[in-house]
Amino acid sequence: MLNEINFDKLKEECGVVGVYHGNRSEEVAKSLYYGLYALQHRGQESAGIATNDGLHTQFHKEMGLVPEVFNEAVFKRLKGHIGIGHVRYSTTGDSNVVNAQPLVVRYRGGNIALAHNGNLINAAKLRDRLEESGVVFQTTIDTEVIVNLIARFSSDGIVNAIERTMELIKGAYALVVMTEDYLIGVRDPFGLRPLCLGKLENGYVLASESCALDVIGAEFVRDVEPGEIIAISKEGLETRQVQVKNRRASCIFEYIYFARPDSIIDGTSVYEARKNAGRILAKEHPVDADLVIAVPDTSIPAAIGYAEASGIPFGEGLIKNRYVGRTFIQPEQKLRETAVRLKLNSLRYNVSGKRIVMIDDSIVRGTTSKQIVNSLRTAGAKEVHLRISSPPVAYSCHFGIDTPNRTQLIGAVNTVEQIRKTIGADSLGYISTEGLIESVGKPAEHHCLACFSGDYPMEVPTVGNKKVFERL
Amino acid sequence: MLNEINFDKLKEECGVVGVYHGNRSEEVAKSLYYGLYALQHRGQESAGIATNDGLHTQFHKEMGLVPEVFNEAVFKRLKGHIGIGHVRYSTTGDSNVVNAQPLVVRYRGGNIALAHNGNLINAAKLRDRLEESGVVFQTTIDTEVIVNLIARFSSDGIVNAIERTMELIKGAYALVVMTEDYLIGVRDPFGLRPLCLGKLENGYVLASESCALDVIGAEFVRDVEPGEIIAISKEGLETRQVQVKNRRASCIFEYIYFARPDSIIDGTSVYEARKNAGRILAKEHPVDADLVIAVPDTSIPAAIGYAEASGIPFGEGLIKNRYVGRTFIQPEQKLRETAVRLKLNSLRYNVSGKRIVMIDDSIVRGTTSKQIVNSLRTAGAKEVHLRISSPPVAYSCHFGIDTPNRTQLIGAVNTVEQIRKTIGADSLGYISTEGLIESVGKPAEHHCLACFSGDYPMEVPTVGNKKVFERL
Amino acid sequence: MLNEINFDKLKEECGVVGVYHGNRSEEVAKSLYYGLYALQHRGQESAGIATNDGLHTQFHKEMGLVPEVFNEAVFKRLKGHIGIGHVRYSTTGDSNVVNAQPLVVRYRGGNIALAHNGNLINAAKLRDRLEESGVVFQTTIDTEVIVNLIARFSSDGIVNAIERTMELIKGAYALVVMTEDYLIGVRDPFGLRPLCLGKLENGYVLASESCALDVIGAEFVRDVEPGEIIAISKEGLETRQVQVKNRRASCIFEYIYFARPDSIIDGTSVYEARKNAGRILAKEHPVDADLVIAVPDTSIPAAIGYAEASGIPFGEGLIKNRYVGRTFIQPEQKLRETAVRLKLNSLRYNVSGKRIVMIDDSIVRGTTSKQIVNSLRTAGAKEVHLRISSPPVAYSCHFGIDTPNRTQLIGAVNTVEQIRKTIGADSLGYISTEGLIESVGKPAEHHCLACFSGDYPMEVPTVGNKKVFERL
Amino acid sequence: MLNEINFDKLKEECGVVGVYHGNRSEEVAKSLYYGLYALQHRGQESAGIATNDGLHTQFHKEMGLVPEVFNEAVFKRLKGHIGIGHVRYSTTGDSNVVNAQPLVVRYRGGNIALAHNGNLINAAKLRDRLEESGVVFQTTIDTEVIVNLIARFSSDGIVNAIERTMELIKGAYALVVMTEDYLIGVRDPFGLRPLCLGKLENGYVLASESCALDVIGAEFVRDVEPGEIIAISKEGLETRQVQVKNRRASCIFEYIYFARPDSIIDGTSVYEARKNAGRILAKEHPVDADLVIAVPDTSIPAAIGYAEASGIPFGEGLIKNRYVGRTFIQPEQKLRETAVRLKLNSLRYNVSGKRIVMIDDSIVRGTTSKQIVNSLRTAGAKEVHLRISSPPVAYSCHFGIDTPNRTQLIGAVNTVEQIRKTIGADSLGYISTEGLIESVGKPAEHHCLACFSGDYPMEVPTVGNKKVFERL
Repeated sequence: MLNEINFDKLKEECGVVGVYHGNRSEEVAKSLYYGLYALQHRGQESAGIATNDGLHTQFHKEMGLVPEVFNEAVFKRLKGHIGIGHVRYSTTGDSNVVNAQPLVVRYRGGNIALAHNGNLINAAKLRDRLEESGVVFQTTIDTEVIVNLIARFSSDGIVNAIERTMELIKGAYALVVMTEDYLIGVRDPFGLRPLCLGKLENGYVLASESCALDVIGAEFVRDVEPGEIIAISKEGLETRQVQVKNRRASCIFEYIYFARPDSIIDGTSVYEARKNAGRILAKEHPVDADLVIAVPDTSIPAAIGYAEASGIPFGEGLIKNRYVGRTFIQPEQKLRETAVRLKLNSLRYNVSGKRIVMIDDSIVRGTTSKQIVNSLRTAGAKEVHLRISSPPVAYSCHFGIDTPNRTQLIGAVNTVEQIRKTIGADSLGYISTEGLIESVGKPAEHHCLACFSGDYPMEVPTVGNKKVFERL
Repeated sequence: MLNEINFDKLKEECGVVGVYHGNRSEEVAKSLYYGLYALQHRGQESAGIATNDGLHTQFHKEMGLVPEVFNEAVFKRLKGHIGIGHVRYSTTGDSNVVNAQPLVVRYRGGNIALAHNGNLINAAKLRDRLEESGVVFQTTIDTEVIVNLIARFSSDGIVNAIERTMELIKGAYALVVMTEDYLIGVRDPFGLRPLCLGKLENGYVLASESCALDVIGAEFVRDVEPGEIIAISKEGLETRQVQVKNRRASCIFEYIYFARPDSIIDGTSVYEARKNAGRILAKEHPVDADLVIAVPDTSIPAAIGYAEASGIPFGEGLIKNRYVGRTFIQPEQKLRETAVRLKLNSLRYNVSGKRIVMIDDSIVRGTTSKQIVNSLRTAGAKEVHLRISSPPVAYSCHFGIDTPNRTQLIGAVNTVEQIRKTIGADSLGYISTEGLIESVGKPAEHHCLACFSGDYPMEVPTVGNKKVFERL
Repeated sequence: MLNEINFDKLKEECGVVGVYHGNRSEEVAKSLYYGLYALQHRGQESAGIATNDGLHTQFHKEMGLVPEVFNEAVFKRLKGHIGIGHVRYSTTGDSNVVNAQPLVVRYRGGNIALAHNGNLINAAKLRDRLEESGVVFQTTIDTEVIVNLIARFSSDGIVNAIERTMELIKGAYALVVMTEDYLIGVRDPFGLRPLCLGKLENGYVLASESCALDVIGAEFVRDVEPGEIIAISKEGLETRQVQVKNRRASCIFEYIYFARPDSIIDGTSVYEARKNAGRILAKEHPVDADLVIAVPDTSIPAAIGYAEASGIPFGEGLIKNRYVGRTFIQPEQKLRETAVRLKLNSLRYNVSGKRIVMIDDSIVRGTTSKQIVNSLRTAGAKEVHLRISSPPVAYSCHFGIDTPNRTQLIGAVNTVEQIRKTIGADSLGYISTEGLIESVGKPAEHHCLACFSGDYPMEVPTVGNKKVFERL
Repeated sequence: MLNEINFDKLKEECGVVGVYHGNRSEEVAKSLYYGLYALQHRGQESAGIATNDGLHTQFHKEMGLVPEVFNEAVFKRLKGHIGIGHVRYSTTGDSNVVNAQPLVVRYRGGNIALAHNGNLINAAKLRDRLEESGVVFQTTIDTEVIVNLIARFSSDGIVNAIERTMELIKGAYALVVMTEDYLIGVRDPFGLRPLCLGKLENGYVLASESCALDVIGAEFVRDVEPGEIIAISKEGLETRQVQVKNRRASCIFEYIYFARPDSIIDGTSVYEARKNAGRILAKEHPVDADLVIAVPDTSIPAAIGYAEASGIPFGEGLIKNRYVGRTFIQPEQKLRETAVRLKLNSLRYNVSGKRIVMIDDSIVRGTTSKQIVNSLRTAGAKEVHLRISSPPVAYSCHFGIDTPNRTQLIGAVNTVEQIRKTIGADSLGYISTEGLIESVGKPAEHHCLACFSGDYPMEVPTVGNKKVFERL
């Protein structure tokens, strides 16, 4: 039950970061460490860093959180002025250190390290083709397909090799690539997953989110463009636009839930988008109530927005236990009902006798929402009106987000009224897709909205899931 | 620098919990575990649980957080329908598992287990006297003095023994005591440290804070009174009022910072007191500004209160990294300035170009405040007005709170204007002592305010500190 | 089954060591560490060291082997020129770090640390009496009784206090005691457990066995006499003979199995005694055979002795896997028979077609012997003649050795012929008690032989066992 | 200094094992575990097991000893009736879990797992060629080259693919290979590294040494022949002799030091060979002395042989501490001299006043020998005559043994008399090469003797060492 609180959210699968120092005597490993720490919300399964000093490549990757994986002894080995890092999310079953990233390989031109956020939809086909030509695979991650393709095309130089690889791979990818000479950032032609560029006094940083730049002390420059390759070397920064699509498809869930509120993605503040969504939600689903509360922490901006737009005061209604971590002893049946309060306890003082508007960013299965509504009622709430700052999630993601099977998506198989009943709220309102788009401030064609609409930006396999190739 | 963010707060030293099940076949260990989990904010150094089934006493205690210390194998050993638990705060230097609690001893009447939140001011004297009569001490904690006294007086029964012990010990103590027959709760005659009573269907719970009752599923009954002994046994609940003082001295810092906002202490909601303090602060120190922000998480209620009273909108201005834990690799000099952002990053979108009122609950040394103000300015804040929801901390605590030496207390040795300059804020306002008292809603005689005034509720040793007896 | 190989031996319960440096600037901790390492065979459950520099006492103790318990960080804390150390054997059930030694307590005179090898037979009675006078106990070890008595008598000085304590305690004890001024060694009046004295250039060493002196670089001086207190301080070495008995009762099993062969105990080389036992066994139980082998490692000297006296060549017949440690995954039923070979494999080349004399030092339950005999036959041995260099173990030890219940002692409930049949040997011969005594070279009155004869050197409790007081 | 005792031996680099059960419902993982446990002396750095049930392949590998790497949770995953295992030796610097084996890859035909003992001398060249055709490498082990070649040739079936691979690879290799259908054992055409075949009731076992068969309960069948491929599948056992050389080159150091004495390699008992070497040494280098002792444990058979042939009695002279493990706190300068005794203490009783013949199996650097000789003299030995059961090691190995640089090999740069002086022995005698060959009982052409003679069985690279390709 406790775990379900965490479980009932979509999960980002990865975060990437890269640092290039023009001054070869400057070490990048600790900057990468801070960057990964800032991106920890994008993946808690494994962490890894690879660095090189122009000659030798070193890497370290392990299962665990960033502060668990790295220590001073490891940093002594991780020498060099170029480096990349990766955090990966823990999905059940396939957690294995061989799947941790960055993937570091030796190829004819030297060493290449690659870290990947996203998911390819044609990896199986490419893999089969490579296997037919004699290639062996040691992992079950798409990244190994990408690195094999780059290596094959490498006689023309790394940047050309990446360009040729992009002609073959389909899907979502934000990549950071390292060679002895280069730090390279790549974003897929639809811009599905985010990647941005920062500037150091004498170098560059690439990161999934701008909050990592802040920690490293880099100045935000701009987002990497869809289909763009940014190659940084001692010659400076070189950019190449390799594929141009007539639309973008940036994942809108980054604004709703995944990204940190202090990040700016594709020019829009995540915080602002969330607050706007709250404001719009207040207009789309007004209600007569006494207090607006958030399911902490991600829904706070939307709750503040809702409060501002509705004139209903904002307050805290649910107190989060800051010490509830990943390990937890399952309660006996008898304690199940109360144990949910271990993580999230209702603030009786604030909710008792009141009509509550509770803002949440999304509902996936609905189990947690039901528990929280129930907990608020036990604490004396007179009414609980649930407002969701995203439309119902009804379709699986094929682009790097861990979504449950459609049959488990409460929004896929139920009407809003059915959901309301299941959850036990007095009323339930989802923001409209138009409202959500408006909250980000860009045209609809800018985004991938497939998890709401099923309208994928490219053809997707009908039965594929990310483990289909894990015959290992 | 990172560590200073944590460091610049006063630290609660302990949390206690006890459970008694009338039905002897019901196990208490997991309830204690959940209770300790809810009290984890009161101590992160060590955790322990002792239980008994009427015949055999078992215990387990270790350095570490609650989920690290306990596992299913441990629970298999911790049998019984009576039990107590303890979490302890990590002070530097003296962390040793022999000092972990509960302290479990065998005495002539059987076994006794004791968990203690607080600090005795005459422990040294009592210890000396006991040593003179041949007693040896194996730990450096006051609890061992208390348990020795109880054992000595035990021929008249455990409750009488506790009463006689209370005649000798001076200082702050909230105790939970377990024997083969009893679960007993005791609160010192001034009521310095909190302790409350809850009811299970067929049993009782004692806990430092009511938030632990919520998690265990117990109904809040009332606070234990100053000088009260509550003894629970198969005969039911028996209470004895053993010492009556003409005043109380409940620690007001529980409301300001220590306790969880969802706890109710001595009849007042912690959340309410904090929000009231914000409202009063707005009246005492108004300012013309654009946004009220909190230093997360404890200052949020006061910030909301300030916003409501002042009419200035509340918003988030500082984003906390939820994954920054206890271990952290020190940044190199070059990264020092930015690494503070790893824990607390300014939300540029919300603060840029604005006049900010930043609410914090207290300033101890002032180092962290300075960094945060600086970080807000870098993020574009036009003005930063600091408002503190407690008066300047100027005196050390002798009653169970870890305070730095007076010379390190910025409020002890500086005027408010000097502090403002040091921190670099545009203005600085502390709530008045009267305002703080008003925020809790009880008369001044109800509280210990010594950390602000130096006016201790009893005579305190002039050079004593909690390590003075650690000759071991 | 695997574990039974280890299990089927009597187990020493502890080893102790103490170091005193005349030069106060010399640290003793590492010498203690090496000493404990050399005594590791006497206890693998927990290890501990306490040191002091004349003012401050420090200690560290934990469950685990010596190299697991200590590290450089611990040594930085363990300052001082006086110190004691302890290793403890792992009995099932009662392993708990609170029972680890040295026991360090604060008493009216300062700090006292005590490490104990042995077992008191009147601890329960003394404990009851102390409890009646109000003393509480935190552990289940006899050592806590001893330290309480010493503290009570301490007004006359530590040495007198120990003398008075010795008047009260009965049983086996080799003690090392440390105060801010003294390192003291004590051996019980019967000399049941060993303790010897060594000399450093500018200091002294006390240890359970002389092999620890070799590692520390101390010169062997002599054994501590039964009933002797040796007190080392800045005044030098002072000795006091406090109780004189008309007989000694040194544990003869130290020679048979417990002690290391390179130790000298009470003037006799352990190696020599074992080899003598083998020689005598050859005379008492001759047999016509082709090869004498040992159950490695302890029985090798006796096997060499048997070979020399009988003229039958000595050779290896069982190869021990040097990597089999404490943890081991239990084999499935099917592999049970072969898995014994994981620890001890028969050397087919040497045993095939031969008549084998196999020397073992003792048989406790007999289960392992049966497996080994069977394994030798599978490897082709024509005959297996088992010779045991100790008489049948038939009585429990009350003086610090972990013996199974009499009903489990194969020697207590069976004739030699019955044992032979159970084990499946072609013949079986135990050394006679007289032969064993002759092997050590001292009169019978010098030894405790109670595990063979039931003739205890003092009256022992009829149902007592070492866990009887563990009501905790 | 302590570490040098271990360090001053050549180190075997790996051990392999494979199990095939005809009955698909029988699990092989635990048999592999026992087999690896028995081969632990061949590698203590990492351990790994891969299994399959005909459909799915699972593997687990980690740094650490066999009992540390595996546990019941791991065994639950390792399903299947076919499996292979590997232990690897810890060389400094390049210990990384990505280099652990078995190497498991997916290729066009399914999954293939491979474990390798040995070293290729043309791996770099093959690697370069593969890289030129676009292959990427993720590890620094030769095994990855082999598995890539097999995959490339796999269209003709796995056995043919292995045969074609053997045409390309040069050097030492004993391989166990697993697919969904096959367990395959391969030995290089010179038979440099050992591999043998055992029979289960309904299956087969392959292992580096026969001692692993004993533990698994398999009956020894025969050694795999040089250049032989043994393929086990549901069709039974199929064998193919793919390359025939006019000589063999089995590593003679397996008999001298690496293998366990209870193993039989290429028809010769390792124990017998060692004992023979001792006998021959006695004839080649007789000396008038009182006692023959061994440096435990490997030199015991040779010492017994020497004793038998010379008529001088065999006895123990050096006592090994069975608890000295891999971790050890370095002694301070002052304790250096004595700390060697922590691992190996001289048995004063046996050596004092005597003329000692000390048998050791080899001298690599000579540092340890010097310490031991010195320790024996301190213990009173009148004379110390050192006899070595192998000729001077003077050349590096290119076939899977970790040898120091020639300049560090005391036998490469010194005369025997110089070595004797350095070590401080009264006399020093090495067995002759002829004597060593005689001890094994096979013609000289059967063995690789290159570490003594520099006469390698094939052309070796002049500057190559095993890390030359570790550009990662």
